[in-house]
Amino acid sequence: MSLDHPAAKPHDRLAAALSQDMEAVNTLIRARMASENAPRIPEVTAHLVDAGGKRLRPLLTLGSARMMGYGGGHHVHLAATVEFIHTATLLHDDVVDESRQRRGRPTANLLWDNKSSVLVGDYLFARAFQLMVETESLRVLDILSNAAATIAEGEVLQLSAAQNLATDEEIYLKVVRGKTAALFSAATEVGGVIAGAPEGEIAALHAYGDALGIAFQIVDDLLDYQGETKATGKNVGDDFRERKLTLPVIKAVAKADAEERAFWSRTIEKGQQDDGDLDHALALLDKHGALAETRDDAIGWAHRAKDAMARVPSADPELRAMLVDLADYVVSRVN
Amino acid sequence: MSLDHPAAKPHDRLAAALSQDMEAVNTLIRARMASENAPRIPEVTAHLVDAGGKRLRPLLTLGSARMMGYGGGHHVHLAATVEFIHTATLLHDDVVDESRQRRGRPTANLLWDNKSSVLVGDYLFARAFQLMVETESLRVLDILSNAAATIAEGEVLQLSAAQNLATDEEIYLKVVRGKTAALFSAATEVGGVIAGAPEGEIAALHAYGDALGIAFQIVDDLLDYQGETKATGKNVGDDFRERKLTLPVIKAVAKADAEERAFWSRTIEKGQQDDGDLDHALALLDKHGALAETRDDAIGWAHRAKDAMARVPSADPELRAMLVDLADYVVSRVN
Repeated sequence: MSLDHPAAKPHDRLAAALSQDMEAVNTLIRARMASENAPRIPEVTAHLVDAGGKRLRPLLTLGSARMMGYGGGHHVHLAATVEFIHTATLLHDDVVDESRQRRGRPTANLLWDNKSSVLVGDYLFARAFQLMVETESLRVLDILSNAAATIAEGEVLQLSAAQNLATDEEIYLKVVRGKTAALFSAATEVGGVIAGAPEGEIAALHAYGDALGIAFQIVDDLLDYQGETKATGKNVGDDFRERKLTLPVIKAVAKADAEERAFWSRTIEKGQQDDGDLDHALALLDKHGALAETRDDAIGWAHRAKDAMARVPSADPELRAMLVDLADYVVSRVN
Repeated sequence: MSLDHPAAKPHDRLAAALSQDMEAVNTLIRARMASENAPRIPEVTAHLVDAGGKRLRPLLTLGSARMMGYGGGHHVHLAATVEFIHTATLLHDDVVDESRQRRGRPTANLLWDNKSSVLVGDYLFARAFQLMVETESLRVLDILSNAAATIAEGEVLQLSAAQNLATDEEIYLKVVRGKTAALFSAATEVGGVIAGAPEGEIAALHAYGDALGIAFQIVDDLLDYQGETKATGKNVGDDFRERKLTLPVIKAVAKADAEERAFWSRTIEKGQQDDGDLDHALALLDKHGALAETRDDAIGWAHRAKDAMARVPSADPELRAMLVDLADYVVSRVN
């Protein structure tokens, strides 16, 4: 099956349609992650960048700019910016979460040390800002610096919210908007901005990225309880073991009786976990239909993403169709 | 003695002359370190910001802008930017160095945790970029994003250079330019840029900040071996115990015989330290005149700073005189 075949995965079709641009992004990333003075920087970064990852965020920027008819070269800078910000947050997240695996490989904090992960992350943040300054668009700088602040804020909020049973769906959504959706929505919005799209269409691109990012993170949190290690690169129940209160558990806690509440309090809030607790947690999620409800929420956000995209008149309807399909694809992982 | 008395400390005279501007900077810092969503952010930041510190970097920005006749308000944003970048690097440094004390108080990573220090540092970096975007000066954004990259690069370089006896004065200077002087020189340069100073004068302001920052860091490294805990807030020999190769030791290593080299290799490279090793290290520094030579280097850089500043015609000669005196003051701590 060829990549432009309609049955190919939307993400792969998008990557194929934008392959020339994406090659330019990869070349720029490689050039800018270098450091003459500190050879450890490209070592650490290459470890992560070469591991692949889906390059979803840069594709969103390239796709948004192109579908709005952009003919310049700055979308490449912005796509690299977005990927650098993402890579920097991964490096810092792995320190924060004390992770040992990322994209199927040992994490940088394990291979080198926490110090390298913190400082190389800082370097990539700074490199990201240099790249966006080169676009000479103050509006783009405004959007991306706001996104960077929202990301960090979401991550800090998560520190206190994740192990607190009082965390409700509203707080969860704030965390998700911060840690994931802020960069998705900035990625699509800046594509529209550099293409000189009208305000209403820029707003729709932003809304698309926001809803897509939320759907993406909800699916991620859902797969943690029902995915297979092979598909996700994570083990079932990692979030439970790491005492991270995500949407499935929030829904189960909301319907918990006193005994169930005590269970969640012991395992998540106090972190006292024994053999069999994960199975019991899964049984409670099932009893209250928490996984099905979480899945419905993800599908709802995917629909919002598609609706927003449908409002955008595009110079390249095929590209737009791929972005619409991408929203379905993101939730198809749990269909 | 009043603060405008010539015998008052130059740093205090500068702070007094710029007290109104500095008040505006403090107000802006307090407003921007807030976070409605994540209350831990202002807690962590306030712990560090309220501890005082000398506010040297924002004073450099305010002083440079004012001495070049700047009459607008953006110097306040830039001074807050520079302080935020500095505070963010302190938070990350304390994680990297596993420090327990900063400015005479327990560090944030000790009071909260490493996670909070990493993520709140990221938040402050992002806030710094937001602040500088508000100046709407692409040149300022270029200077400060380059400085941020140079700082991170210097810190990463230090990771590998600090415990390697092959590190010579050239590499040391690269590290110092990165970790300290890059922010000093950016702080003074952007003051000149927003004031619309001619290119030659902007270059001189940059050269002043660069030389001042180098002098400042060399003095810091020297005080680690000859200061008193009361004056520095650090204990004599901290760098030795943390196996950080700084200028005094680099000079002693360069003159070491085989036996002395083995001593440095054991204590710094291998980190095998026993009782009495610090005393032996101090004796070797003394034997080779390493502390006196380091002091001479610091004085040399202070002179370069003064020479650069003397080339700048100023709308406010008194302010310029304070900045000249500041260079003497920085090295007076070891006179």
